[in-house]
Amino acid sequence: MTDIAIIGAGPAGVAAALTARARGKSVYLVSNDPLHSGLAKAERIDNYPGMVGKTGAQVVQGMLDELDSLGIELHEGRVISVLPFGDEFMLGIGQDMVQANAVILALGAAKGTAFPGEQELLGRGVSYCATCDGMLYRDRTVCVVGSTEEAEKEAAFLAGIGCKVTYVSHREPLGDLAEGIEFRKMTKVEIVGEDSVRGLVIDGEEMPCDAVFVLRPAIAPSSLIPGIETEGAFISVDGDMRTSIPGVFAAGDCVGKPLQVAKAVGQGQLAAFAAVEYLDGKRP
Amino acid sequence: MTDIAIIGAGPAGVAAALTARARGKSVYLVSNDPLHSGLAKAERIDNYPGMVGKTGAQVVQGMLDELDSLGIELHEGRVISVLPFGDEFMLGIGQDMVQANAVILALGAAKGTAFPGEQELLGRGVSYCATCDGMLYRDRTVCVVGSTEEAEKEAAFLAGIGCKVTYVSHREPLGDLAEGIEFRKMTKVEIVGEDSVRGLVIDGEEMPCDAVFVLRPAIAPSSLIPGIETEGAFISVDGDMRTSIPGVFAAGDCVGKPLQVAKAVGQGQLAAFAAVEYLDGKRP
Repeated sequence: MTDIAIIGAGPAGVAAALTARARGKSVYLVSNDPLHSGLAKAERIDNYPGMVGKTGAQVVQGMLDELDSLGIELHEGRVISVLPFGDEFMLGIGQDMVQANAVILALGAAKGTAFPGEQELLGRGVSYCATCDGMLYRDRTVCVVGSTEEAEKEAAFLAGIGCKVTYVSHREPLGDLAEGIEFRKMTKVEIVGEDSVRGLVIDGEEMPCDAVFVLRPAIAPSSLIPGIETEGAFISVDGDMRTSIPGVFAAGDCVGKPLQVAKAVGQGQLAAFAAVEYLDGKRP
Repeated sequence: MTDIAIIGAGPAGVAAALTARARGKSVYLVSNDPLHSGLAKAERIDNYPGMVGKTGAQVVQGMLDELDSLGIELHEGRVISVLPFGDEFMLGIGQDMVQANAVILALGAAKGTAFPGEQELLGRGVSYCATCDGMLYRDRTVCVVGSTEEAEKEAAFLAGIGCKVTYVSHREPLGDLAEGIEFRKMTKVEIVGEDSVRGLVIDGEEMPCDAVFVLRPAIAPSSLIPGIETEGAFISVDGDMRTSIPGVFAAGDCVGKPLQVAKAVGQGQLAAFAAVEYLDGKRP
């Protein structure tokens, strides 16, 4: 049980964590590896005061070192759901659950939108987590849609527990796929079914299957937290970084342009202040 | 003639300058000595990513060094007026004028509000600039209200050109006042007069004079730019940091709480983006 769960350890998430900590709140910071982010690939950052002239990787590493110096732990993991639970929140992180009183979303830039059928069939054959749901589809036919090394590993895991796996990607696999996994290249997919998944339509051709594992590096906000208000690919926030869900705040690239370090850091701090205010009002 | 004049070289002003420069605009950055700011006196900053664990003075100096590394010049000076001039702006800096197409106010936290009578009699006996207006009051009686070393120097300048000077402050002078200057300690002052200054009421007792030089380290926004909308001591801005005056933007402590480095930096960047957008729209 933590005061504030912060999802994402880019500039917005780090700024939120530092300020939440400075204001005496406990923090659970969870993120994909920040060194695999778009920022980490930037050649040179010249407009963030305090880190002018550094490479993106140096900026990211520098911020991680600062977290470390203050004893703020970074938990590596992919958050697959944020569910309200009374006036608290349960975060699904792989198979683990983390409970928090408030949540700050610092998810980074949107990485594409949901596939047709994805949100409608989520939990009814569509899954974001092979580890969580794989056993339900033992001896059955599943598609894994993804494009990362992690997605290929997850496909191998599913094959290993006895699923019949087709790995579907817009690009050739990065490594050798595990034995028994079929590969299908696609440019467009659609998930179809009525009560539950019936198949995956790959470039117009339907392939029957019982489940579709969608393994993007990041999950669309509206899939992560059902009902959260968005504007296109971005999470809607007010001037204090409050989302449409009380207790949930958002900052950085996931709330809109400009997609810049300084703006993200400023918003991360504002989100932390708003979360602290929310928590202080919540407790008698 | 410059694209964007930025007033203040604290975190908001520095961030604005870096982003404006990165977007290809010319910048005129003018400020009091940032090493005399409140931030420079902070013992330790632990919630600004990139400079965790540094003292306030190190944060300020670090940002100044970065400006320098990019060849962005910092002009030391006290801006006493920002006047619209067609669709441009004239900045009065001491006796100098600087012309700009857009202005970003990064003035820092408000340092008290105007004295009673100050705004009403501004330009009619009330002045913010001894160098500019001193000669008008040669051989006449003037009060200098201030509390800084600079204010004492300005009082000495006025005495030197032949004004009869009373230095009025809420604290004892920091150095020896120049010969011929009287000192009056005060807790409260009011400037009185009809068409022009008639006197200064010091703790209820009126002292006749022809001019009052108000020499605060920073000038209230509403005195700096007549007609700008404020909310209490803060400049009103929209989410993109636009003030009520087209072409004028504001960021950092001068637009409100929290008075924090990260928030100021984020807003400084947003103000620069908004100013760039404004300029790009202005030019056919």
